Amino acid sequence: MRCTIGKNERNDIIEKIVSLAKRRGFVFQSSEIYGGLNGCWDYGPLGVELLNNIKSEWWKAMTYREDVEGLDAAILMHPKVWEASGHVENFTDPMIDCKQCKARFRVDTLGEMIPEKKKNKALETLKETIKENADKQTTLEEIYKNHVDLEEIFESVLEKIGEDLLSSLNCPNCGTPNSFTPPRSFNLMFKTFLGPVEKLENAIYLRPETAQGIFVNFLNVQSASRQKLPFGIAQIGKAFRNEINTKNFLFRTREFEQMEMQYFVKPSEDKKNYDAWKATRIEWFKKLGMTPDKLRYHDHPADKLAHYAKEATDIEYEFPFGWGEIEGIHNRTDFDLSRHEQFSGKSQKYFDEEAKEKYIPFIIETSAGASRSFMAFLVDSYNEEEVNGEQRVVLKFHPKLAPIKVAILPLVNKDGMPEVAKEIEADLRPFMKVFYDNKGAVGRRYRRQDEAGTPFCVTVDTQTFEDNTVTVRDRDSMEQIRLDKKELLNYFLEKLR
Amino acid sequence: MRCTIGKNERNDIIEKIVSLAKRRGFVFQSSEIYGGLNGCWDYGPLGVELLNNIKSEWWKAMTYREDVEGLDAAILMHPKVWEASGHVENFTDPMIDCKQCKARFRVDTLGEMIPEKKKNKALETLKETIKENADKQTTLEEIYKNHVDLEEIFESVLEKIGEDLLSSLNCPNCGTPNSFTPPRSFNLMFKTFLGPVEKLENAIYLRPETAQGIFVNFLNVQSASRQKLPFGIAQIGKAFRNEINTKNFLFRTREFEQMEMQYFVKPSEDKKNYDAWKATRIEWFKKLGMTPDKLRYHDHPADKLAHYAKEATDIEYEFPFGWGEIEGIHNRTDFDLSRHEQFSGKSQKYFDEEAKEKYIPFIIETSAGASRSFMAFLVDSYNEEEVNGEQRVVLKFHPKLAPIKVAILPLVNKDGMPEVAKEIEADLRPFMKVFYDNKGAVGRRYRRQDEAGTPFCVTVDTQTFEDNTVTVRDRDSMEQIRLDKKELLNYFLEKLR
Repeated sequence: MRCTIGKNERNDIIEKIVSLAKRRGFVFQSSEIYGGLNGCWDYGPLGVELLNNIKSEWWKAMTYREDVEGLDAAILMHPKVWEASGHVENFTDPMIDCKQCKARFRVDTLGEMIPEKKKNKALETLKETIKENADKQTTLEEIYKNHVDLEEIFESVLEKIGEDLLSSLNCPNCGTPNSFTPPRSFNLMFKTFLGPVEKLENAIYLRPETAQGIFVNFLNVQSASRQKLPFGIAQIGKAFRNEINTKNFLFRTREFEQMEMQYFVKPSEDKKNYDAWKATRIEWFKKLGMTPDKLRYHDHPADKLAHYAKEATDIEYEFPFGWGEIEGIHNRTDFDLSRHEQFSGKSQKYFDEEAKEKYIPFIIETSAGASRSFMAFLVDSYNEEEVNGEQRVVLKFHPKLAPIKVAILPLVNKDGMPEVAKEIEADLRPFMKVFYDNKGAVGRRYRRQDEAGTPFCVTVDTQTFEDNTVTVRDRDSMEQIRLDKKELLNYFLEKLR
Repeated sequence: MRCTIGKNERNDIIEKIVSLAKRRGFVFQSSEIYGGLNGCWDYGPLGVELLNNIKSEWWKAMTYREDVEGLDAAILMHPKVWEASGHVENFTDPMIDCKQCKARFRVDTLGEMIPEKKKNKALETLKETIKENADKQTTLEEIYKNHVDLEEIFESVLEKIGEDLLSSLNCPNCGTPNSFTPPRSFNLMFKTFLGPVEKLENAIYLRPETAQGIFVNFLNVQSASRQKLPFGIAQIGKAFRNEINTKNFLFRTREFEQMEMQYFVKPSEDKKNYDAWKATRIEWFKKLGMTPDKLRYHDHPADKLAHYAKEATDIEYEFPFGWGEIEGIHNRTDFDLSRHEQFSGKSQKYFDEEAKEKYIPFIIETSAGASRSFMAFLVDSYNEEEVNGEQRVVLKFHPKLAPIKVAILPLVNKDGMPEVAKEIEADLRPFMKVFYDNKGAVGRRYRRQDEAGTPFCVTVDTQTFEDNTVTVRDRDSMEQIRLDKKELLNYFLEKLR
């Protein structure tokens, strides 16, 4: 058995995984029969189990503790929330219009139409410019470090060098040369209207992040749970961004799920808690089997921090397309609660009984993507191996994450065989997701379970009738042991603990 | 101990529950610090646990079986889906404009402005009209049966008698008498735009039901899971309706969660499967402790069926405000898949290997509200009891649904006492949601747990140091037993099975 994935094959892997994901029912394109909806994906039978298991493990790790409370806030929120958060003003991407035909284009889409040679030349020019300008020395490196491929790098620098390049293009709609307006900002929040009248005063937004639902509930939760600082509020839920550039399968989508925890602390204890959560969160991925070498921190340098952050790091996973953020840990200071105090006119201060003082807590945020974690766990589990001269594809999920825990495979179609197998199935089913398969050669059935990531296969064979034992085959080692069929439930429950 | 809730107090109960829900952290108003967002609610620390437990029990009951697969489809879908489903055309409510000032009103809102006397008189007239008209005899009764209060009855008949009544009103905006246009239909789907250009061709909708995500994935799921008819696809997810009239706490909201299962069957086997699911689903509520007397079927008479349905029933719960639907079971025939075949141009036929024929399956739908189930379980659990001359409020949740499973209460602040209690907490915490409380008299602590619905309280007392036993107090009987502290985990795991 050896791993056959070479570096050269890296680019194929995402394609292989997308194809496996569809074929085996992990992920389908949304509304596929209508040609799909860009940036939206549906989780199939195996996918929804994997996703639910990831969410459930996160929920247990984050809320089965004394100092963190759970929350499930609505996706639709009062529009003032997004004024206070800064999203109405700042959550934007550049767009341009053709002066001639009035067609509107995303700057990055136009960017893609510029020939590769021109782009590269412009990049070289940019590099030169940066070199010449000492205090901007790190800019391009930072851009390289933060982004996963050349296309993204290009987008990032487009604003700086874009106008020159764009002036060389004709309008893709009417063909007029050099007729573009300067880039303007468009908001990435999905807007809709509450009530039947489509007036600006009735506009609301699909939340672009779940965090704000936690901030505005800070005092409600604190008072209901009688928590004292430091304590956290955790939430799993959908968020939506009208992304200009969806890409890399589940990595950047318009609809996605977040697993966020906001930890409220005394301002002087921000650093301590930030460091603690930073360490805790990367461990979570490792404990669930993610390859440690493919995980790293990317600390944001001080001059690159978001407007609300005092300190920030990304937990990155090395995807086949490069390093990508799967979780962010941020010291958000008192920015969020101060803004909500200001915009709502309601005090967001906490009374510290010990210190006998009132203050707005600092917030340490751990913001993980459920969808991105799903993709990272899926990619990380993917293995191609050679077994006795044949190739097997095996998804080596941690048993806690595996969609199906146990497959039950009656070996031959002998009298009583399906009945015994069905009994075992019935014993296990109330406690875990099991799968019954009596079709085809056992080798083929094992391969199908390997591809689904099922950690254990139980085979019922003729010996079962002699001594009540069955074989349990381990997905990764492919080793088999014999167990009394009555021991199975406890054996698997133990393995899943 | 006796139940002190009389019929006269029924109307107060919802108010009491809403207040308890906020105080104890079950449900908060969405964006409360900004005055709330009508028709949206946030689930607090106890609420999210209850909701998650309901969803998890449903998921296990519905998908831990051989013939049902899970799915988690995106909320945003291709707009053609809603043309095929009929929602673009039919999912509407009547609205009218003032001819004078162009202000737009919901017909029901105007209806509310009509004095009660006039309404009642109009209703009497309507009754007379119906009586005179033999073939419409049942209409009003049906209206009464289907709706939960007078206001709703009024809405339903308003379209019939509305124009006369409305003509007696002045425009609430400009005061002009009798200046309304005839009612026009407005769609209840929330509309937004995919991409930055707000053009009709880019319009998409927030799904008003989760079912369509299942229908459009029928063949993808069937092929990935290799299921044969009959089989089902189950999904839990958010849906959104721009409701004209939100009301009754969580009963009618703009954002809500559904638990839907679509069971695909051979057309000739529709009746058999419809009857089976009807029986199965009401049992689910009963098994989780819902009072059987407060559950009933409301079968839809043949002339009242929705356009897609051949047979339909509601499972209703008797809320303090009247009977209300918490789940619908429908024989949807081949309507949905036929429409999607027609609108997508992709065959939705299933090849039946046994019968050697191709056909579009019939669909039996079980559509439960997760939010409504939450409300029904919450209301049903609510009890006021007199204990030794004092009142206690107790939420008698089934242990599987209870937000907190075990509270750990060290009785006195003796050396070693918190340590033992903390040890017990640490033993249990990885397996269930526990709560540690060392503040206040033990009687008060019990009452707080009663109010949170916690089924078991463990008290550590001085005897614990002598014989390693603790007391376990049962929420409902209030009886206490002593158990060795090492037996606790298995004792509770057994109770939660």
